[in-house]
Amino acid sequence: MSTAPAVTQSHFAQRISGLKPSPIRDILKVIDQPGMVSFAGGLPNPDSFPVLSSEIPSRYLQYGPSEGEFELRERVSELLAKRGLNCPAERVLILSGSQQGIDLVAKLFIEEGSTIALEYPSYLAALQVFDLFGAAYVPLDELNATTSLAYAIPTFQNPTGYCYTLEQRQQLAKQCDATSTVLFEDDPYTDLFYEDVCQTPVCSLLQNTSWIYQGSFSKTFCPGLRLGYIACSEDIYPYLVQLKQASDLHSNRISQYLIMELLNRADYAERSAEIRALYRAKRDYFDKTLGNLMADQATWETPSGGLFFWLQLKDSKISVNELFQRCVERGVAFMPGNHFFPQGDTNDSYLRLNFSHASELQTQSGLQILAKTIAEISGQGMKR
Amino acid sequence: MSTAPAVTQSHFAQRISGLKPSPIRDILKVIDQPGMVSFAGGLPNPDSFPVLSSEIPSRYLQYGPSEGEFELRERVSELLAKRGLNCPAERVLILSGSQQGIDLVAKLFIEEGSTIALEYPSYLAALQVFDLFGAAYVPLDELNATTSLAYAIPTFQNPTGYCYTLEQRQQLAKQCDATSTVLFEDDPYTDLFYEDVCQTPVCSLLQNTSWIYQGSFSKTFCPGLRLGYIACSEDIYPYLVQLKQASDLHSNRISQYLIMELLNRADYAERSAEIRALYRAKRDYFDKTLGNLMADQATWETPSGGLFFWLQLKDSKISVNELFQRCVERGVAFMPGNHFFPQGDTNDSYLRLNFSHASELQTQSGLQILAKTIAEISGQGMKR
Repeated sequence: MSTAPAVTQSHFAQRISGLKPSPIRDILKVIDQPGMVSFAGGLPNPDSFPVLSSEIPSRYLQYGPSEGEFELRERVSELLAKRGLNCPAERVLILSGSQQGIDLVAKLFIEEGSTIALEYPSYLAALQVFDLFGAAYVPLDELNATTSLAYAIPTFQNPTGYCYTLEQRQQLAKQCDATSTVLFEDDPYTDLFYEDVCQTPVCSLLQNTSWIYQGSFSKTFCPGLRLGYIACSEDIYPYLVQLKQASDLHSNRISQYLIMELLNRADYAERSAEIRALYRAKRDYFDKTLGNLMADQATWETPSGGLFFWLQLKDSKISVNELFQRCVERGVAFMPGNHFFPQGDTNDSYLRLNFSHASELQTQSGLQILAKTIAEISGQGMKR
Repeated sequence: MSTAPAVTQSHFAQRISGLKPSPIRDILKVIDQPGMVSFAGGLPNPDSFPVLSSEIPSRYLQYGPSEGEFELRERVSELLAKRGLNCPAERVLILSGSQQGIDLVAKLFIEEGSTIALEYPSYLAALQVFDLFGAAYVPLDELNATTSLAYAIPTFQNPTGYCYTLEQRQQLAKQCDATSTVLFEDDPYTDLFYEDVCQTPVCSLLQNTSWIYQGSFSKTFCPGLRLGYIACSEDIYPYLVQLKQASDLHSNRISQYLIMELLNRADYAERSAEIRALYRAKRDYFDKTLGNLMADQATWETPSGGLFFWLQLKDSKISVNELFQRCVERGVAFMPGNHFFPQGDTNDSYLRLNFSHASELQTQSGLQILAKTIAEISGQGMKR
């Protein structure tokens, strides 16, 4: 190699101008440092992971169907029926993690000039994909007949932890029906409920508009298997299968086999209940510790499910991104909330704190450092 | 659900008009029928698959880095060095199969109006992705300064099985350098060589232009693990990592662990040699049987590696797609060659025959049926 090549932006497709370094990546790098207490990622607790030691039947080593293993699709269809969503196995598509579902749906619906209606704030890695394909945004309650897609996380939302009431679910369904807007419902956290709340899929309440419902095995099994699934209305399914095939031919068959094994275990329901008990206890401890240490500094709602607390600082003069830098220097990481708002929103007073990963000791020491750092910045009257 | 929803094309992004049902999918469905002899897919022979029975360390169950496991990236970097391509582990990206590499590269470079220079014919699932993103095409030897990307499979090409000479490799490198065209070299078959031929990566011969080199573990290990890799010039790497993250966060960690295990086995080189011996014998048997049965009907070059024979029928009046339909009714499948030509090319006199999957008995009976069907159609003077 005589000279180092250097492409310019003019070599790239126009969409690449919308590709920004991901804060998740940068933050995951930080939390890999030894000794760091991290409230940043959406990491499940390893204590919740299954033991995988099965011999893998050799037929799963060959190429497989783009739609996924039919037996697994049947099991997903059964799971969905229990949640109140009727979708035959023939319309279930196994994904290489639910991030892939976002990519496929964006390819199908989003191009320069498309408008997506979504929650403010919303899942940052979804925004990243929608940005790449050129989306503009409106708040979910402003969706109208020109909206290309409504994207919602009605159950234990990421980042806020919020769970829609039945009335709110009905309202969203009605709006989508009235405007013929395709609904993309992202539901990775539904199995992680800690209270008795409404979790009815909004897709099950639709009367006539097209829909895509997405779930994940990353939270209740483990993320390393990279498996999720989509169920959708009949008109959408063939397109998503073709896009799936063009993206990676099909999902990992060994993971699919292992998930089938886990779903077929006699103790499956018991295991799910144990994971919820583990996370409920962690949520409660986190909530109590937050109350002890930060009640004067921030406000939050206790989440009824999922993996996150969403805090708003009372002192609006504090920049959460500056707070983040100082905390990282002191060995504590979290996710600054501004990354969860669509492009251009400069809201900088929120923090997303993951409660599922850190131990009680780490939670105590990490939140102490966070509270102390907020107090210092606040005392200094640091301006943005 | 009151009425079945029915989206129209106007709901979709414009690119979806370039999304066509894949012939691979349709043909894979056909070959799943019991009793079918299939020369259609690019299926490795299950006899070549490893036995996977390891206990998977639990740390691989958590989310992992988008780039892939560093240890695996180091092993890939070493493999590439042996092939003559110098690329540090820091510029290796682990993929969920090499189909994903095509998707990522297309996202980075291709939009409506982009021109790709490629071999006529070329890999059909690459054409499918390039079509989706709006590409136009020119033959590889016509690449020029307005070309967005050169896509080439220099070693045991799919579908033709052709392997470039050193001079042809140097010529392609020179053309890319002279026109500042980014080279995307797809090299999934390089370990499946049956003769002593030049396999030097064209990317290693470039002087100053940007490059992307892609390989796969599907052919020498097994496809079900869905793992491939990209190595590329420094200027390209950060973009591909971001696009990878947006596509599926990271590749399956269990597969990565299993591949590392396999690469670290003491008998790795021996195993690779055994797979080559298995496939070389299958190629030779296929070649001999073709010679016995079809020498009057078709021409072909014996491939020096890879998985395919590429046949041209001597009787130009026969439509290969009609031949395909008749053969499928008689229990024999292959891939009609026209699918491998860019959109609009109506060349219908080629067949791609996979030789790695069928047994000797199946090869004998399948090629007999194929030859007999060609003779019948030819005798009838069937016109296209």
